[in-house]
Amino acid sequence: MAGSTIGNQFRVTTWGESHGKALGAVIDGCPAGLELSEEDIQVYLNRRKPGQSRFTTARGEGDEVEILSGVFEGVTTGTPISVMVRNQDQHSKDYSDIAHIYRPGHADYTFMEKYGIRDYRGGGRSSGRETIGRVAAGAIAGKILETLGISIFTYTKSIGDIAISKVDVDAIDSNALCMPDAEAAKAAEAYLEDCIKKQDSAGGVIECVVEGLPAGLGEPVFEKLDAELAKAMLSIGAVKGFEMGDGFAATRKNGSTNNDAFVSDGETVTKATNHSGGVLGGMSDGSDLVFRVAIKPTPSISQTQRTVNEEGENVEIEIHGRHDPIIVPRAVVVVECMAAITLVNALYANQSSRLEWLQDFYNKQE
Amino acid sequence: MAGSTIGNQFRVTTWGESHGKALGAVIDGCPAGLELSEEDIQVYLNRRKPGQSRFTTARGEGDEVEILSGVFEGVTTGTPISVMVRNQDQHSKDYSDIAHIYRPGHADYTFMEKYGIRDYRGGGRSSGRETIGRVAAGAIAGKILETLGISIFTYTKSIGDIAISKVDVDAIDSNALCMPDAEAAKAAEAYLEDCIKKQDSAGGVIECVVEGLPAGLGEPVFEKLDAELAKAMLSIGAVKGFEMGDGFAATRKNGSTNNDAFVSDGETVTKATNHSGGVLGGMSDGSDLVFRVAIKPTPSISQTQRTVNEEGENVEIEIHGRHDPIIVPRAVVVVECMAAITLVNALYANQSSRLEWLQDFYNKQE
Amino acid sequence: MAGSTIGNQFRVTTWGESHGKALGAVIDGCPAGLELSEEDIQVYLNRRKPGQSRFTTARGEGDEVEILSGVFEGVTTGTPISVMVRNQDQHSKDYSDIAHIYRPGHADYTFMEKYGIRDYRGGGRSSGRETIGRVAAGAIAGKILETLGISIFTYTKSIGDIAISKVDVDAIDSNALCMPDAEAAKAAEAYLEDCIKKQDSAGGVIECVVEGLPAGLGEPVFEKLDAELAKAMLSIGAVKGFEMGDGFAATRKNGSTNNDAFVSDGETVTKATNHSGGVLGGMSDGSDLVFRVAIKPTPSISQTQRTVNEEGENVEIEIHGRHDPIIVPRAVVVVECMAAITLVNALYANQSSRLEWLQDFYNKQE
Amino acid sequence: MAGSTIGNQFRVTTWGESHGKALGAVIDGCPAGLELSEEDIQVYLNRRKPGQSRFTTARGEGDEVEILSGVFEGVTTGTPISVMVRNQDQHSKDYSDIAHIYRPGHADYTFMEKYGIRDYRGGGRSSGRETIGRVAAGAIAGKILETLGISIFTYTKSIGDIAISKVDVDAIDSNALCMPDAEAAKAAEAYLEDCIKKQDSAGGVIECVVEGLPAGLGEPVFEKLDAELAKAMLSIGAVKGFEMGDGFAATRKNGSTNNDAFVSDGETVTKATNHSGGVLGGMSDGSDLVFRVAIKPTPSISQTQRTVNEEGENVEIEIHGRHDPIIVPRAVVVVECMAAITLVNALYANQSSRLEWLQDFYNKQE
Repeated sequence: MAGSTIGNQFRVTTWGESHGKALGAVIDGCPAGLELSEEDIQVYLNRRKPGQSRFTTARGEGDEVEILSGVFEGVTTGTPISVMVRNQDQHSKDYSDIAHIYRPGHADYTFMEKYGIRDYRGGGRSSGRETIGRVAAGAIAGKILETLGISIFTYTKSIGDIAISKVDVDAIDSNALCMPDAEAAKAAEAYLEDCIKKQDSAGGVIECVVEGLPAGLGEPVFEKLDAELAKAMLSIGAVKGFEMGDGFAATRKNGSTNNDAFVSDGETVTKATNHSGGVLGGMSDGSDLVFRVAIKPTPSISQTQRTVNEEGENVEIEIHGRHDPIIVPRAVVVVECMAAITLVNALYANQSSRLEWLQDFYNKQE
Repeated sequence: MAGSTIGNQFRVTTWGESHGKALGAVIDGCPAGLELSEEDIQVYLNRRKPGQSRFTTARGEGDEVEILSGVFEGVTTGTPISVMVRNQDQHSKDYSDIAHIYRPGHADYTFMEKYGIRDYRGGGRSSGRETIGRVAAGAIAGKILETLGISIFTYTKSIGDIAISKVDVDAIDSNALCMPDAEAAKAAEAYLEDCIKKQDSAGGVIECVVEGLPAGLGEPVFEKLDAELAKAMLSIGAVKGFEMGDGFAATRKNGSTNNDAFVSDGETVTKATNHSGGVLGGMSDGSDLVFRVAIKPTPSISQTQRTVNEEGENVEIEIHGRHDPIIVPRAVVVVECMAAITLVNALYANQSSRLEWLQDFYNKQE
Repeated sequence: MAGSTIGNQFRVTTWGESHGKALGAVIDGCPAGLELSEEDIQVYLNRRKPGQSRFTTARGEGDEVEILSGVFEGVTTGTPISVMVRNQDQHSKDYSDIAHIYRPGHADYTFMEKYGIRDYRGGGRSSGRETIGRVAAGAIAGKILETLGISIFTYTKSIGDIAISKVDVDAIDSNALCMPDAEAAKAAEAYLEDCIKKQDSAGGVIECVVEGLPAGLGEPVFEKLDAELAKAMLSIGAVKGFEMGDGFAATRKNGSTNNDAFVSDGETVTKATNHSGGVLGGMSDGSDLVFRVAIKPTPSISQTQRTVNEEGENVEIEIHGRHDPIIVPRAVVVVECMAAITLVNALYANQSSRLEWLQDFYNKQE
Repeated sequence: MAGSTIGNQFRVTTWGESHGKALGAVIDGCPAGLELSEEDIQVYLNRRKPGQSRFTTARGEGDEVEILSGVFEGVTTGTPISVMVRNQDQHSKDYSDIAHIYRPGHADYTFMEKYGIRDYRGGGRSSGRETIGRVAAGAIAGKILETLGISIFTYTKSIGDIAISKVDVDAIDSNALCMPDAEAAKAAEAYLEDCIKKQDSAGGVIECVVEGLPAGLGEPVFEKLDAELAKAMLSIGAVKGFEMGDGFAATRKNGSTNNDAFVSDGETVTKATNHSGGVLGGMSDGSDLVFRVAIKPTPSISQTQRTVNEEGENVEIEIHGRHDPIIVPRAVVVVECMAAITLVNALYANQSSRLEWLQDFYNKQE
């Protein structure tokens, strides 16, 4: 089977292994006429690049992106955009110690069961480096949304037990953890220092807010906007949960306290509250889209762990080397990019909802 | 756009409105050779049928299924299976009071914004009756899994604040709430009685456990097994969240406590714990699959609510009539069916993972 | 696997067997706001209905269509349209003589090899009655195109060796063979009478011309407009060939005689000739779309034929009963309908070609 | 929209422009365990490489392929295979003379109408160089088929009016035109010399024969094996027609002469003739698959032609430079590769046809 493509119309195909020659993506379905440079994509890639704080792996990748097709004289042409990042640092590591051992919490065992073979170097295709293609594609999707006035804010909501108590958008980039609350960030940093000392790792929750969406995006049955977002998010490695609006907390409320009243100022219909997180019946309702994503603690830890090798023998393993004690801050941009890809697809799909829109379009073509 | 089809190979297309002539599904991709009768499907449909307890709507639908194609002499032929349930009770209700008002928490407003027209009778396509097609298809998927020895257990984990404290599989069918803990069920029933008295509604959490899956199901990037399950679950109306294994709780743990150690008895590799919920890197790991789904409180309540009508005027609304004070018990079978559909697709997809499997298959054909 | 669905956005799923309970289709992705009645579809179905001349089977089917969903108060709502035709005449025939014999030129043998089981009654799913779903869906697609001013003309180009020598659109409906040349029709009728006398059957060529298409429809690589048309046409039973514009004849010409010169009247760009059949590089070029489809002689003939039964024994077979001596006239509407479905999909897809079109659409939504 | 991806499970996405940085493909869904080297792919690419005879363009491309992912220690791992060919010769040409003129028979005009922008250098995405990605993917598909014992023979059937009168497989590679008839090749060469002298071009027909297919490949409704082949073939630039088996000639025959009698030797069922070209009801029937593809004369000719420029003015154009007087010989390998891709997909899809096959597979996994 396949599985490395997402999106019906704005279609993203990623490829590449952690220690192969390169990683990349093909973005098919980008509209013609978008100004696009390698720098536009690089800005996004730099947000996920390793080695930016003591909480991320020290792997020294430049991660410089090259656009190979689909752009002519600085503008997209409507043909597939192929982007590539060469792996530079891939020869520096000796993987012989984990070549035949299944690391707990990793995909080593499942890859072996599925395919009968695996590229064990750095986790191969299951490495976090796989997200390079997603981020490059998401940068393009993000730029499309930007031209429409749609904005996406993504940040760390909590790390371990430490949650933010406010959303100060300006603070997001001022700390290494992408938390919009400087005080919470400080507490979280202390907690992570402690994790590192204990040779352990931590997880957290990422929240994403989208402003400027029209009502009606999302198809009302299987391709609900929240269903597509849930798939996009769970498709990111290490994600264990997804919540739309109040999410699991809504299950402990009542209809009277969970329903959002519609209100009108005579011109525009809005909602008095936004427990729904901006979707009703799988379609955007004009409010901000709000969802959360649960990220598990990094499975690579240097403590001794019990496990099994390819021969089926019980063994012990200590994973040394360059590993993030927490994935959350680097995953923030990945969440944002997967959201952008999902939204561009929903926008495309919605164009065919009404006959009058199709007629307008047809008349424009002539 | 479309959106009423799910699955690449075991492909389910549903259709129908709450108060239209009928509802149904076309299941394309069911293998030939499966014994299948209308009774097989009816058993599943009866689990979601209304009017079975005081906690579900009194709408008197027989919901009798008719198989229109794809089965010959009691056995599937490999061609599309078309199933249909005629609406019987659809003329009995007067919807003029909500025809031009947007009910809070419902899809009335978003349907109108998307399509410029809506079938307001009983919510039209966004009604819970839309799940009839899903359940009919899921019954067939479930039967395929059964022939392979794969079992799915689905039950109510919590209602409001009341959670089960044990899983007694035999208890699930002995209470109207599908809870595998008779005591918790009793407490939940009392809570729901109170909700009804207050003209209010409640939500809850459904848990699903799948036994007997081989390792390796799921495609490792965008079509991860958990990503496809998340989409399938969020595609069910009223679902606001999804968790795989420990889910959001995992974000508060450490790598050392969240990782599942692999263990071997010399023959089989298993895991000492199952925090992952049976997936690693998006592929089944041979443990039980465990996931949870958050269901919001029923939005239809008879309390007075503020809202807006189609003219954009602020109005008040009271929703009387046949509405479930809680959707959770009837949604249990829907969750199970969407899981079954997802798993059959994953099983199909996995057949092409190894060249040797393809070669075995080719040799068998001759 | 599946295979009974066509179209990415205007998505048609057909179901049903020749002698099952019913046949039908689900059309998902029809825009909201189209006036649609059962009569609109019936008009198309009547064009393929059997029993209309001595050149078509005498099977007495009313083929009355029922719309089960997706239409509210005479207008489409954007939700799936389910249409169904009950089989009425299906019990009248005894199929025991062909139940275990593979008819030459039919799909009996291949169905058995693929599925290990088959509904032998009337060919089951491989019957010409399978096209009922296509025609119902095509009627809807045709109506969408009509509202845009796009017209499709389809007619019989040749039967056996007898080809038309003019296209008199008004003549198409005045003869039982759908030939736009009354004289050719007369000659063809005489030829068919002769075939019937000899217990034999005949084939022919259908031509389709589409007027009013804007330039730019079709995606330039794998989803070329002509590629999608070719698939749609070859998906019709009994079709053995497809030609775009000059087709195979173009292979015997030179660039200088095959190229179409562009010409301008100062306002509009047109082509001096149309050897290309209205596509260049897989996209419509603003000229009329012109393509042809080859239909093989009906395989069911009452002459004695050699064949094999399910036990692998050499046997003889004579196929008596209600069979068309020629399929071509009844296939005309099927070709037209498959073209309409393909064109609506191409139109939908094209909406995302330019960023400015997306921006216009976004602004319209608010 | 998208359109640069083909295949449901063995999924090929191509990218790249004639004079961009590179061209390539991502092949997702290749089974793990296939030995694969760059040399395996290079052999196929060399068959379509320019500059190999006086009948092909002199453009001096090395067309050396690089495998960037999906292969580990010489064996496929089941993850996407990314292949790339850098354009080397792309700076040598001055395209200013055709930058703003629509070449007759080319996609310049339609690209402009669709996207409002185009990469005019060498035709951009509509260049024959786009097939590099197809051929690289087809080489992999071909290798999979080879391990199963399935063989594909592809050759030139006719050029202009000169057709082969025998199929001598050994002769195919002994002439520059890929004709399996040395005498016909000689005549065709003389014809082409004449075309060159007249500053003109020629077309032809390619035939493809597949041996070793099991019966039952292809899905019986919209995804018929011949329908998928037709799409794959018409998706190749310059293809104007497709015939399965006897194709258009079948329309002039009768049922009695077109039907293929089944015959049995007591063990195996075969057909006495193969007018059907190896498919019945859209599924392979166990005979050789036989189809033909019509290729139009190269549109680039150096004769003066009338056309229009981007300003809508009538102008004259002479296309000088490196252009093939005939595309047919270089298209032979492209036809073969598109056939291979289609067949691997059909083989994958067929695995789910029978419940017993699924059960066998499930049991193998444990």
